[in-house]
Amino acid sequence: MQYNNTIKTQLEHRTIREFTNEPVPEEMLSQLIQVASRTATSNGLQASSIIRVTDPDKKKELADICKQEYIARMPEIWIFIVDQYRNSRIAKENNCHEESIGDMDRFFQGFTDACLMADNVENAAESLGLGTVYLGSILNDPVRTIKLLNLPKLTFPALGLGFGIPNQEPQLKPRMDMELRMFENGYKTFDSYMDEIKEYDEIMQTYYDLRDTNNRVDSFSKQLITKLENINPVRQKIVNVIVDQGFDLKLDK
Amino acid sequence: MQYNNTIKTQLEHRTIREFTNEPVPEEMLSQLIQVASRTATSNGLQASSIIRVTDPDKKKELADICKQEYIARMPEIWIFIVDQYRNSRIAKENNCHEESIGDMDRFFQGFTDACLMADNVENAAESLGLGTVYLGSILNDPVRTIKLLNLPKLTFPALGLGFGIPNQEPQLKPRMDMELRMFENGYKTFDSYMDEIKEYDEIMQTYYDLRDTNNRVDSFSKQLITKLENINPVRQKIVNVIVDQGFDLKLDK
Repeated sequence: MQYNNTIKTQLEHRTIREFTNEPVPEEMLSQLIQVASRTATSNGLQASSIIRVTDPDKKKELADICKQEYIARMPEIWIFIVDQYRNSRIAKENNCHEESIGDMDRFFQGFTDACLMADNVENAAESLGLGTVYLGSILNDPVRTIKLLNLPKLTFPALGLGFGIPNQEPQLKPRMDMELRMFENGYKTFDSYMDEIKEYDEIMQTYYDLRDTNNRVDSFSKQLITKLENINPVRQKIVNVIVDQGFDLKLDK
Repeated sequence: MQYNNTIKTQLEHRTIREFTNEPVPEEMLSQLIQVASRTATSNGLQASSIIRVTDPDKKKELADICKQEYIARMPEIWIFIVDQYRNSRIAKENNCHEESIGDMDRFFQGFTDACLMADNVENAAESLGLGTVYLGSILNDPVRTIKLLNLPKLTFPALGLGFGIPNQEPQLKPRMDMELRMFENGYKTFDSYMDEIKEYDEIMQTYYDLRDTNNRVDSFSKQLITKLENINPVRQKIVNVIVDQGFDLKLDK
């Protein structure tokens, strides 16, 4: 069986961080907005929205929040947000008992909607020959991101996507074997994970990451340990910000 | 500008709940697993996994949790999970200070990874002519889903995806205007949301939902209100289950 174009593009996915100066054509943007609109949504409630960041000053501040200078130069930046604000307003205008809109259940439905929408747009963008980069780093300081984008209560930034016409061709990044990530009927554990990822650890060391001026990277396990040791106390406390945005944890204790 | 095949398929996305009895060909499954593997992942940490449910008894119990009988008959059911367990084991075997693996920051990275993976598989499946349905209803009773799939600490079920060869052709479900869902540089609010969605409310009433034996559905605002009034107290308390799975909220108060 051959790979079709959709799957071929998905299998060639890599993160692009450098783009040409050309803007993304309007017609492409229009198609991406249509794709965003048609994305599957939990309960049909469409509890996600997009903030498109075009203001150069806001791009600069995002680059500062994300601690990645290339973000200020990105042709397109779309931030996908949990959005229960819109639905809360519709409920309020109908004098409906709208408290349950602030449940964490609704939060997670919106978070899922936002992620599915981001991935749908990413797949569409890559099918058009655009390069993309996910920006999880907007959560380095969620309070600042919320302020920057003027996000009301009952919304929350989930994930950003930068894209444009690619100006680099990075290597395909090696991935862990799916034998370690996919199981039948129940979760499977292994005696020694270091034994299981030995080969992957070796493969990772032969991969060059363009971010680090063509330097080889560490093995997967070494990267993991470095990341776990570099604790970010602001990111750790993300749930406090979700509560401040008006969501109710309903904790038993 | 023409639509390419990837985008055409995305724009024709609809939920499929009835499938033929034929199994999904092995070669298609193999391609979908490759797509899952190549999905973008936060920090490169690959903090998501898939449980493929093939056991007829487990399918029946899932159908019961989801309160949707057709789930027991679905050719393929893949559950996408947050997975920090694998990385915690790698950290432990390296005697690394691994506490930060249980942060809510890591939880959300895994949740995002799981959703992106689900959407990537969904796009690939539809490109192969398969029909798909997302199963957010696995969270109707997350404790039962966790037990059913034998999920260890530091994992959590995010989202299911059912798929197979479609045996129905539902209408395209109308969506809200993106003017209400996409904003430039900051969130935009409206004076009256009921005015803004008036036309959409009318369009929704002309849409037939196949689930309800070809009955017309309510307007969007009426559906929303019905859903908000039907509070599910188990779903509301989802965060308690996340805590029981070993994640640390780090609440200020």
